[in-house]
Amino acid sequence: MKYINLLGATGSIGTQTLDVIREHSTHFKLSAMSVGRNIHLARKIISEFRPELVSVMKKEDADTLKLEFPEIKFTYGSEGLTEAAVYHKGSVLVNSVIGSVGLAPTMAAIADGKTICLANKETLVTAGHLVMEAAQKHGVELLPIDSEHSAIFQALQGEKKDNIERLILTASGGSFRDRSREELKNVTVEEALNHPNWSMGAKITIDSATMMNKGLEVIEAHWLFSIPYDQIDVLLHRESIIHSMIEFHDSSVIAQLGTPDMRVPIQYALSYPDRLPLKSAKRLNLAEIGRLHFEKADLERFRCLHFAYEAGKAGGTMPTVLNAANEVAVAAFLEGRITFLEIEDLVEKSLASHNNMSNPDLFTIEEVDRKTREFVNSLLT
Amino acid sequence: MKYINLLGATGSIGTQTLDVIREHSTHFKLSAMSVGRNIHLARKIISEFRPELVSVMKKEDADTLKLEFPEIKFTYGSEGLTEAAVYHKGSVLVNSVIGSVGLAPTMAAIADGKTICLANKETLVTAGHLVMEAAQKHGVELLPIDSEHSAIFQALQGEKKDNIERLILTASGGSFRDRSREELKNVTVEEALNHPNWSMGAKITIDSATMMNKGLEVIEAHWLFSIPYDQIDVLLHRESIIHSMIEFHDSSVIAQLGTPDMRVPIQYALSYPDRLPLKSAKRLNLAEIGRLHFEKADLERFRCLHFAYEAGKAGGTMPTVLNAANEVAVAAFLEGRITFLEIEDLVEKSLASHNNMSNPDLFTIEEVDRKTREFVNSLLT
Repeated sequence: MKYINLLGATGSIGTQTLDVIREHSTHFKLSAMSVGRNIHLARKIISEFRPELVSVMKKEDADTLKLEFPEIKFTYGSEGLTEAAVYHKGSVLVNSVIGSVGLAPTMAAIADGKTICLANKETLVTAGHLVMEAAQKHGVELLPIDSEHSAIFQALQGEKKDNIERLILTASGGSFRDRSREELKNVTVEEALNHPNWSMGAKITIDSATMMNKGLEVIEAHWLFSIPYDQIDVLLHRESIIHSMIEFHDSSVIAQLGTPDMRVPIQYALSYPDRLPLKSAKRLNLAEIGRLHFEKADLERFRCLHFAYEAGKAGGTMPTVLNAANEVAVAAFLEGRITFLEIEDLVEKSLASHNNMSNPDLFTIEEVDRKTREFVNSLLT
Repeated sequence: MKYINLLGATGSIGTQTLDVIREHSTHFKLSAMSVGRNIHLARKIISEFRPELVSVMKKEDADTLKLEFPEIKFTYGSEGLTEAAVYHKGSVLVNSVIGSVGLAPTMAAIADGKTICLANKETLVTAGHLVMEAAQKHGVELLPIDSEHSAIFQALQGEKKDNIERLILTASGGSFRDRSREELKNVTVEEALNHPNWSMGAKITIDSATMMNKGLEVIEAHWLFSIPYDQIDVLLHRESIIHSMIEFHDSSVIAQLGTPDMRVPIQYALSYPDRLPLKSAKRLNLAEIGRLHFEKADLERFRCLHFAYEAGKAGGTMPTVLNAANEVAVAAFLEGRITFLEIEDLVEKSLASHNNMSNPDLFTIEEVDRKTREFVNSLLT
């Protein structure tokens, strides 16, 4: 039995992680979890899965829930988040919170020797050097939950890293892949949220449309697999059937494929190094699909992807700026305060105005994150 | 340094194996080889690679070559073939002879404890049960050289066989994939030999056009990976870029891809479990290719594939009949004695008139092979 601490239980990855736990209740048990403000859903999850510790965002919610579930321990805030991450009974942390708030609990769980299943990409984007160093020091495995990184991780099984020639991350191109830059000027939030293949949260769906999501994944892949940026390619593949690939130095390419279903990479991370059946998953039927399409990813069309490569290569605090600026800009777009193309303008301005600091510690990263948010907000008002 | 005994050195797989040995002369050395009648090419290979033992088909050729290369040992005939297979210095046998003549040397090399790199598919088709039993008994590894089986073998690295849901063998469909059965009536040998993707020998190119090649591969896959026939699918994929796939029980599919180049699976078998660089191989560029196509393999359109499934499922001596009848029929087609569609008619008649014997020994297999050839020849005159 694997005991699981799940951060972000009410989100898209969180609820699908719960689906996997439910399907394999003899293998997995929820020991601790965190939720944000969705107390209604939290209540249902607690009733069904009976975790021992629950962390919420606000103290009032913790107090309310404590009255309803007196046998469960409740905690709250950012300290509560870390408490849930390191809860003693869990051997595995599934970190699916969104944004850089996921960093501190990941570092704490690594120091605690827990296996980390990572869906929170900001953790690696902003502090990849610190996270990987800590993981190595504590002998902790980082298992990716993102479908692309899971694909690469699966393709790498039984292979040597030294034989890798190139990682090929596939990208659906998001909601606006068939629109020119001119046509992007007046797109609405509703259009942007209409992702063709994947059912995901709002932030990541917008990031797909700008391709910032792929950019963050490039940085994530760089850290997870210790591969230089010039050996990481992005390939447009509209069907999202090939989830990513590795080209080895003998020219052989190993790929992982499947119908888009996040439960597959989630379950793989939980069951790793074994696989468990996932009976309810839709089987891949390539004859029915008929055709798979591939296109070069145009870095002039997808400027956020270009910025991500540049920030990744620059290293230091640049990826933190990239990520923080993007988070604020996407939130502003979702609130209807800026246009779609202004997202990339804000990211560009933030990067241009930042003086890079190399090898930052956690404090510096948090400072840069905060200041970048302030900077973008100052441009918004 | 791996010492290699190579059977069928002047053939398509043979010369490409020599390319790989040449590219990695610090890793591989040709210790023994067999050739058929192509003494001209044999002479060039001997001069370049200096094997210690060479087996030819006819005694006269052995005598002639002995005068030219006095320091090399020459032998001949079917005994010579086995002698080359088990030559003491070689630790690896690459068996790329065509037809059921490859069976005896494979069995001898297995008994001798050599690693077997198998391009001779008839070995597994006609005597899969004996070969796999012997390999298990002697703790010998069978490494596939066929691109499809190599793809599956590569996809299986780091995975558990028990987790396999389905093998998916891809098939280009061969030279006539876009023709109806009506249009197949009057096709010529030249048209049949014009394979769209792979440069291969004549026999296997015709087998691709009839899809018997894929049928033999289904049987081969059954034995190599111990997978029941109803878990082996064939998928038409005209570009031959995805070389084959494994679907696991969590619905995840692992595939091996690449530009069609037989040196890749050959080298993988030789370098296994490691990979070596293959600098001269053309890198896969999916953006340039643009589209990959997939279609259901129609067993009524491709009757030989249907016969192969039936013979495989029946087991016993049926696959031997399938293979022997096909060999004689293809030879007759190449000689212009029968039409293209008569190949499958001859296979069908041979299977229909055979009384299956279960669990045959090597002697029985050879007898059935001989009698089937006689039967088909009797239909030809």
